[in-house]
Amino acid sequence: MKRGRIAYQGAIHQVTQAADRRVRLADGRLLNESEVSWLPPVVPGTIFALGLNYADHARELAFKPPEVPLIFLKGPNTLLGHCAKTRRPADATYMHYECELAVVIGKTGYQVAKADALDLVAGYTVANDYAIRDYLENYYRPNLRVKNRDGCTPIGPWLVDRDDVPNPMALKLTTRVNDQVTQQGTTADMIFDVATLIEYLTSFMTLNPGDIILTGTPEGLADVKAGDIVETEIENVCNLQNTIVDDRRFFAHSEKRS
Amino acid sequence: MKRGRIAYQGAIHQVTQAADRRVRLADGRLLNESEVSWLPPVVPGTIFALGLNYADHARELAFKPPEVPLIFLKGPNTLLGHCAKTRRPADATYMHYECELAVVIGKTGYQVAKADALDLVAGYTVANDYAIRDYLENYYRPNLRVKNRDGCTPIGPWLVDRDDVPNPMALKLTTRVNDQVTQQGTTADMIFDVATLIEYLTSFMTLNPGDIILTGTPEGLADVKAGDIVETEIENVCNLQNTIVDDRRFFAHSEKRS
Repeated sequence: MKRGRIAYQGAIHQVTQAADRRVRLADGRLLNESEVSWLPPVVPGTIFALGLNYADHARELAFKPPEVPLIFLKGPNTLLGHCAKTRRPADATYMHYECELAVVIGKTGYQVAKADALDLVAGYTVANDYAIRDYLENYYRPNLRVKNRDGCTPIGPWLVDRDDVPNPMALKLTTRVNDQVTQQGTTADMIFDVATLIEYLTSFMTLNPGDIILTGTPEGLADVKAGDIVETEIENVCNLQNTIVDDRRFFAHSEKRS
Repeated sequence: MKRGRIAYQGAIHQVTQAADRRVRLADGRLLNESEVSWLPPVVPGTIFALGLNYADHARELAFKPPEVPLIFLKGPNTLLGHCAKTRRPADATYMHYECELAVVIGKTGYQVAKADALDLVAGYTVANDYAIRDYLENYYRPNLRVKNRDGCTPIGPWLVDRDDVPNPMALKLTTRVNDQVTQQGTTADMIFDVATLIEYLTSFMTLNPGDIILTGTPEGLADVKAGDIVETEIENVCNLQNTIVDDRRFFAHSEKRS
């Protein structure tokens, strides 16, 4: 099943996917996807993100691939739902998308062996973990200015139940900017696969329901500009859309800041 | 005013400090501090932590002081209340405390000038941001195994209102291990002061109520062992106690893991 979270007429609703591009509310009402405001499909706990988890992307950035998972955390301010706007900072000269398989944890686990690791997974969704490359100082530290801007990580629209994704390690990833394919890859190329990441994290800390692991992106990154429509899609999971806006337009109707 | 958060008889309560080491519940009941279970004084939003924000501590670790704030994020799994137990991992050869002034944000702010920055602060508390130094690979990245273990960051017991701490940049910090003073410093020695940190963070992202900034620690770190009682205290804020336990004792009554 595909589950989403929307705002509609003053309330937040859990919805499921229905036929003909509609969503079904818990009370049975059907709405057209176009009339809802999408929220991230999960209220996040800890948000983990992988650096350089595809060898081809590490080469693209001229870094050596990591020997242990290179994991950083992201704040809840970064998440946005489907069909929203992400701001290109005024000082950015290179802002790139990153199509990523997002793993949503559904059960609490500590010291979980790789063979049992996928039992912890509630399901999968798509994230676009934008980076402001200007601030990427070094191999180890995608610092907050690279990866922690408000709304720099659209996610969704659907959380797809684990059982509906029998092999998360063989999914095609595609990014399109204004309908042109710019990034293609497969989760088969991850350096540390989903089960290994869960085994690694639970070797020293507890994972909890709502925790999200953004598993990294393959090569094929490109700068995006205001006005670009960016679609990140993962086969059998979902297609996430996002529009880039610039600072001036984003704040066009705001009071001038003193 | 000093505000805390406790669990007592099956519920979570906001409390204030009362005379004679007692706490006052909202309904007026007074309890002895010894009979309550302390929780972190705030339900955390984003938890920011500073690396190397005191020049003497940077020297102690043989790193050069940073030119921009070196900030990483911590997950909510790391926080623990006052008078709780923090586990020394079985594989740790060097685990040190870090007495830190914790700044709790009370208002939403974006692009806040340094002169107005303290208006965003709800109050201050004390955190002990333990580090497993074995995993400290490099200057840039206190990775998750150093700083994101479960319960590795006791915090509290009191959130002290901002107005009761007229100058957060002149507070004495003291750590005692088993009643012996091992760390002394003053917040006056921070490289980036509280207002500068808020100005920096809000220059590229929004701060929200419940966000917490752990502002770093001065020199004087030492390894702690199971059984040690560690007190981190900041003048005019509060005194936070924590006990170190080892893995075997922590899990003594647990089922054997397969």
